[in-house]
Amino acid sequence: MNPDLRKEREAATFNTELLTHILDGGSERTRRRREIESLVIGDPDFCHEDANFLSRSERYEAAVKKSALMIMKMREYGISDPDEIYYYKCIANGSHPEAIGLHFVMFLPTLKSLCTPAQMDKWLPLALSFQVIGTYAQTEMGHGTHIRALETTATFDPATQEFVLNSPTVSSIKWWPGGLGKTSNHAIVLAQLYTQGQCHGLHAFIVPIRAMGTHEPLPGVVVGDIGPKFGFDEIDNGFLKLENVRIPRENMLMKYAKVEPDGRYIKPPSDKLTYGTMVFIRSMVVGESAKAISKACTIAIRYSTVRRQSELRPGEPEPQILDYQTQQFKLLPLLATAYAFHFVGQYMRQTYLRITGDINLGDFSELPELHALSAGLKAFTTWVASAGIEVCRMSCGGHGYSHCSSLPGIYVNFTPTCTYEGENTVMMLQTARYLLKSYTQASAGQKVSGMVSYLNEMSQQRLQPQQVSARSTSVNLKDLSSLVEAYKIRASKLVELAAKSLQTELQLMKTKEDAWNHCSIDLVRASDAHCHFVIVKLFCSKLAEVEDTAVHSALYSLAHLYALHGVYQNTGDFLQAGLLTVPQLTQVTQQLKELLSQIRPNSVALVDAFDYRDEMLNSVLGRYDGNVYDNMFEWARKSPLNQTEVHNSFYKYLKPLQSKL
Amino acid sequence: MNPDLRKEREAATFNTELLTHILDGGSERTRRRREIESLVIGDPDFCHEDANFLSRSERYEAAVKKSALMIMKMREYGISDPDEIYYYKCIANGSHPEAIGLHFVMFLPTLKSLCTPAQMDKWLPLALSFQVIGTYAQTEMGHGTHIRALETTATFDPATQEFVLNSPTVSSIKWWPGGLGKTSNHAIVLAQLYTQGQCHGLHAFIVPIRAMGTHEPLPGVVVGDIGPKFGFDEIDNGFLKLENVRIPRENMLMKYAKVEPDGRYIKPPSDKLTYGTMVFIRSMVVGESAKAISKACTIAIRYSTVRRQSELRPGEPEPQILDYQTQQFKLLPLLATAYAFHFVGQYMRQTYLRITGDINLGDFSELPELHALSAGLKAFTTWVASAGIEVCRMSCGGHGYSHCSSLPGIYVNFTPTCTYEGENTVMMLQTARYLLKSYTQASAGQKVSGMVSYLNEMSQQRLQPQQVSARSTSVNLKDLSSLVEAYKIRASKLVELAAKSLQTELQLMKTKEDAWNHCSIDLVRASDAHCHFVIVKLFCSKLAEVEDTAVHSALYSLAHLYALHGVYQNTGDFLQAGLLTVPQLTQVTQQLKELLSQIRPNSVALVDAFDYRDEMLNSVLGRYDGNVYDNMFEWARKSPLNQTEVHNSFYKYLKPLQSKL
Repeated sequence: MNPDLRKEREAATFNTELLTHILDGGSERTRRRREIESLVIGDPDFCHEDANFLSRSERYEAAVKKSALMIMKMREYGISDPDEIYYYKCIANGSHPEAIGLHFVMFLPTLKSLCTPAQMDKWLPLALSFQVIGTYAQTEMGHGTHIRALETTATFDPATQEFVLNSPTVSSIKWWPGGLGKTSNHAIVLAQLYTQGQCHGLHAFIVPIRAMGTHEPLPGVVVGDIGPKFGFDEIDNGFLKLENVRIPRENMLMKYAKVEPDGRYIKPPSDKLTYGTMVFIRSMVVGESAKAISKACTIAIRYSTVRRQSELRPGEPEPQILDYQTQQFKLLPLLATAYAFHFVGQYMRQTYLRITGDINLGDFSELPELHALSAGLKAFTTWVASAGIEVCRMSCGGHGYSHCSSLPGIYVNFTPTCTYEGENTVMMLQTARYLLKSYTQASAGQKVSGMVSYLNEMSQQRLQPQQVSARSTSVNLKDLSSLVEAYKIRASKLVELAAKSLQTELQLMKTKEDAWNHCSIDLVRASDAHCHFVIVKLFCSKLAEVEDTAVHSALYSLAHLYALHGVYQNTGDFLQAGLLTVPQLTQVTQQLKELLSQIRPNSVALVDAFDYRDEMLNSVLGRYDGNVYDNMFEWARKSPLNQTEVHNSFYKYLKPLQSKL
Repeated sequence: MNPDLRKEREAATFNTELLTHILDGGSERTRRRREIESLVIGDPDFCHEDANFLSRSERYEAAVKKSALMIMKMREYGISDPDEIYYYKCIANGSHPEAIGLHFVMFLPTLKSLCTPAQMDKWLPLALSFQVIGTYAQTEMGHGTHIRALETTATFDPATQEFVLNSPTVSSIKWWPGGLGKTSNHAIVLAQLYTQGQCHGLHAFIVPIRAMGTHEPLPGVVVGDIGPKFGFDEIDNGFLKLENVRIPRENMLMKYAKVEPDGRYIKPPSDKLTYGTMVFIRSMVVGESAKAISKACTIAIRYSTVRRQSELRPGEPEPQILDYQTQQFKLLPLLATAYAFHFVGQYMRQTYLRITGDINLGDFSELPELHALSAGLKAFTTWVASAGIEVCRMSCGGHGYSHCSSLPGIYVNFTPTCTYEGENTVMMLQTARYLLKSYTQASAGQKVSGMVSYLNEMSQQRLQPQQVSARSTSVNLKDLSSLVEAYKIRASKLVELAAKSLQTELQLMKTKEDAWNHCSIDLVRASDAHCHFVIVKLFCSKLAEVEDTAVHSALYSLAHLYALHGVYQNTGDFLQAGLLTVPQLTQVTQQLKELLSQIRPNSVALVDAFDYRDEMLNSVLGRYDGNVYDNMFEWARKSPLNQTEVHNSFYKYLKPLQSKL
C-alpha cells in the first residue's frame, strides 16, 4: 500500500468499520452487503474489458450481456429481497446504467399498479420470464415536464374492439425512454384517450412494438435509438413513432379508468393514485446523489493524499496536495455534503415506507408534504452533487480528465438526474407552491405540521412583536444547534419574502399565473432555503443516534462544517435575516478554517467508511492501495490507439502531406 | 424559418449587423471573416460524417485528415495572416480541437524563441514542410504545475558530444502533451540538465521520437496514447518514456543557456524570457471563454424561443420557455457574461500586443501586471464559462444531453482550460501574490499603477479618515458607474482583508509559506473580487466606444445586468463593505427582474450578433432557422445503433435468456 495512505489510515481518530455500519444501517446489513458484493467480485463471468475502450455499440452489447447475466445469477443465488438486489446490481454495474433497467424500474411497477387482475395474469408471467421486455414511453420529442400536453393519441374503435395509436406530428414521437430503441419488445405508452368522439386525457396502454421471437419492429411501428448522448452510452434511449397501430381493447391498463366494449368511458375514482411512483423515485434519487458525490469524494480525497505537488516549505519534499487549504476547501465541504445527503436519503426512504403504509390504510394526510419534500430535495441534492462531482474531478488536476479516473463517467451518468423524473427548476417550484400554501395557512392561524412547522412560529412572532425584539437572533457559530435554528429562520424569512413578492405581483398582473411567474426567482430561493434547512436539521438529528464517541465527534465536525459552509456561501441571506453581524463574518471564515484542519486528518478514514470496493469505483486515482502511477501507465497502454505503433492516418494523410510540401 | 424565431428577430430594437461589427472589431473584419468562412463552407472536401457517430480512432483519423487539408488549403488560398488563419481554423474545426494543433501553438513558437540562428536554419524548414511534426513535452505523470520538480534528465556526455535522456521513474514519464501519442515525430522535451556532475535545472531539447519516413518509434523511445479522456477524443495526448535516448549536443535549444563541447554550462542572461508564451496563451484563453459561453448561449437561447412547454395562462398555447422568469434568470446573465468576456478578451489581446511592443523596446515595467491579470482572468473566465455551459445545457431539458445539441461537446472540449496552461486555483494565487505586493507598496505610500491603482485610494482614505465617513458609500443600483465603483471598493476591502489575514497568520506560523497557505481561501477570494472588478470596469468602458444609440442601449442593459447579477450573487461582500444596506436587497432583486424583462425581447438578436454559422455550431437545437424537431429525428436515424433493425445482442443474450427462463 502507498505509504501516505497507510499513514492516513493509521492516524484516524475513529474506527472506520463502525461508521460503515451506521451508513449501512447496522452491522448485519454491512455483512450481507459485502457477502453479496463478493459474489460478483469472485465471479469470472463478470470479468470484462474496460468499457472506456469500447465503441458505443460494444458498450450496449456488454450491458445487455451483463443484464442477462445478473438475472440468471440472482435467480441462481436466490437473491430476491429488494435491498439485496440493489447491492448486487450496484457492484455489478459500478457507475454504469443497466441495459434492461426500465423493465424493472418502470415497466413492472406500472403493470403492478395499473393492471386489472386479469391483465396481471396475462402480462406478469410474460414480463417475469422476459418473453416480454418492456419500457415506459411517456416523454415525447416536444413534451417533457408538462405531460398533459402529450400528443400521442389512442382512439377506440368499437367495430374491432381495438385502440388505434398514432403519433400525429413529429413532435409527438416518443423520445428518450431507456431501452426503447433496441431492447424492448413492448412499451407502456402514455396517450390521449379518445372514445365516442371525446378526449379523456392521458391513459396507459401496453403496445407491442417488436415481434416476439424475431424482435423485428411490428407494422406501423417506427422505432430506433435516439443517438449518442452525454453519458448513458450503454443505454438505447429510443424513439417510437406509431402509425395506425392497433391493439386490443384489453391492452389499456384498466385497474382504475376503463373503456367499455361499447366505447363508454369510466373515470378513475381518484387522481392521487398516480402520485406514488413519482414520489418513490424522487425520494430514491436523494440517496443516489449521496452515492455519486461520495464516490467522487473517495476518488479525489485518496488521490489528494497520494499526489504530491509544489513546495510549501523550501527544501522539504513536495507536500500532499490535501495539505493545501484551497484543496481542503474544495473537497471537505463536499465530503460533509456526501454524509449529509446520505442521512437525508435514509430519512426519505424511511419516510416513504412509513407514509406508504399509511396510504395503504387510507390515510393520505402526509402525502402532500412528502411530495413537496421529495421534489425539492431531489432538485437540491442533484444540483449540488452534480456540480460537486465536477469540483472533485477538477481537484485532481489533469488526471481527473482521464477516463481512468472514472470521474468523467460518474459525472455524465449522474447529471441526467437534474432533468429526469422532473426538471429541477420545476421541482423547486412545486415545493414552493407547497411552502406558500403552508405559509398562507399558518398566517391565517391554522397550524401546519411536519418540516414546515417553523411557519407556525413565524406567525406567532408577528402576533407578539415584543418577543421578537427581545430575542437575540445572532447565531452562535460554534454551536450546531444554533446554526440549525439560523437555517430555520432564514428559510422562514425567505418564504415570507417570496409570499410578499407574490402579493405585490398579484396587484400588478393580469393573472395568478403571470404573478407566479414574475416572482419565480424568489420562489426557487425560498425552496432552496427550506431544503437546506431540512438537510442541516436531519444531519444534526442523526448525530443523536450515534453512540460511539469517536465516530460521533468525527461526524459532528462534518455536520458543523456542512452548516457553516452554507452560511459562508450565503452570508447575504444570514445578514439580511439579522442572524449574522458584519463583525461575525471574519469568525465564519476563521471557524471554517479550523474545521478544515480538524477534519483533514480523518478525511481518508471518512471516505474509506463509504466502503466502495475498487471494482465498484473502477478508478485508477481512487484505488484503495493508492498505487496510482503504475496502474495509470498500464491502463493507458491498453488504449485502442496503441494497438498499432503507427496509426493508419499516418499513411493516409501525413505522409502524403510531407511529400507534397 | 420557425415563426417564433422570425418574430423575435423582427422585434429587436437594434441592428444586429452593427453589433457584429463591434464584436469583430470593425465592419471590414466582419466582411473578411465571412469571406474566409465561406471558403470552408462551400468546400466539398470539408463535408464529413458527424463526429458523434465515429469511434475514437475514426475521430482521430478524421481530425488528422482535416489538419492536413487545412494546411494545403490555406497555402492554396494564401491565407497567412494570424487573424485570418484563426478565422479559417475556427470554422473548419467547429468546437473540436485540431489534431496537429501543438505543432503550431507550442512547437513552432518554441523553436522561434529558443533556437540559435544555426538551429533555426536547420529546424524551421523541416517543421514548416512537416517533415518534422512536433509537440511540446513538459508535463509528467507525477508533475504538472510545479515544473521545477520535473524528473526527466538530460545528461551531457562529452565523449560522444551527446545528451543522454532518461525517464528515471514511472512518475517521470511525459504525460498529456497533445499530438505526442501518434502524430508527432519530434518533441521538445523539458528535462533537468546535468553536465560536469551538476544539475542546472530545466532546459529544452529537441528529441526525435519516431523515424522520419517510417514513423516507427526510435530505439529507447516508448511512446503512445494515454487513453480516452473527457473530451478531446480527436487528440492523441501521449506518453513518452525515454530510456538512454541519445541526441546530439546541438539539439539543446541554445539561444540563451548553452552547454559547450567540453561540458561547460553557460547561464541564460535573464529569467524573464520564458514568461512571454505563457502570458500570451492565458490572455488568449479569456477570448476562448467568451467564445465557448457565447456558443452555448446561442444554442440555449434560440432553442428556448422555439421550445414551447407547460402552461402560463390557462387555455392559451404553451408559452416559449424563454418567457419563464427562471429560464431568463439562467440564460440572460450568461449572455451578459459572454459579452463581458468578449470585450475583456479584446482588451487582453490589445494589451498583450502593446506590452510585447514595449518589451521588444526593453521596457519590462508592465509585464508583472499583465502576468498577474492574465493568470487571474484566465481562471475567473474559464471557471465561469465552464459552469455556464452546463447551465445552458441543462436549460435545454432532456435534449441538451443529446450530442445533437452540441452542448456536451462544447463543455468537454472547453472545461480543460480550467486546468491546462496553469491550474485555476494556482493562477488565482499568483494574482493574489501580485495584489498583496501592490497592497504593501500602496500602504507604504508608494504609488501603484494599472488595474490595481484603487489600492492607492484605499491607503489615502486611511490617512484622511474624515473623508471616508463623509463619503456616502451606498451604491446606486440603477447607475452602472456607481456599480463599478462598488466593485472597486469591494475588491479593495477583500484585498485588505486577505492582507490582514496573512499578517495574523504570519504571527502564528513557523514559515511564510505556511502562513500563505493558511489564508489561501482569503487570497483566492481577493483575486476573484479583483478580476470581477476588472471585468465590470472594462465592460463599462467599452460602452463609451459604441456610437449607435440602439446598440448602446442594448449593451448598456447587458452591462448593467452583468454588474447587478454579481451583486445578487455576492450580497454578503457588498453588505460587509457597507456598500449595500439590508433594505436595498429587495431592490437588487427588483432591478434584476426589470433588466431581465428589458433584455428578453432582444435576446435572439443579441445571440445572432455573435454570427456563428450553423456549420460552426453544429447544433440541432441552435439552428438559425429553428427547425429543431425534424432535424433531430433525421439526425437520430443516422445513429450507428440503427444500422440494423435488430441488434446483435438480441441473438447473443436476450433470446437465450428468454428460452432459459
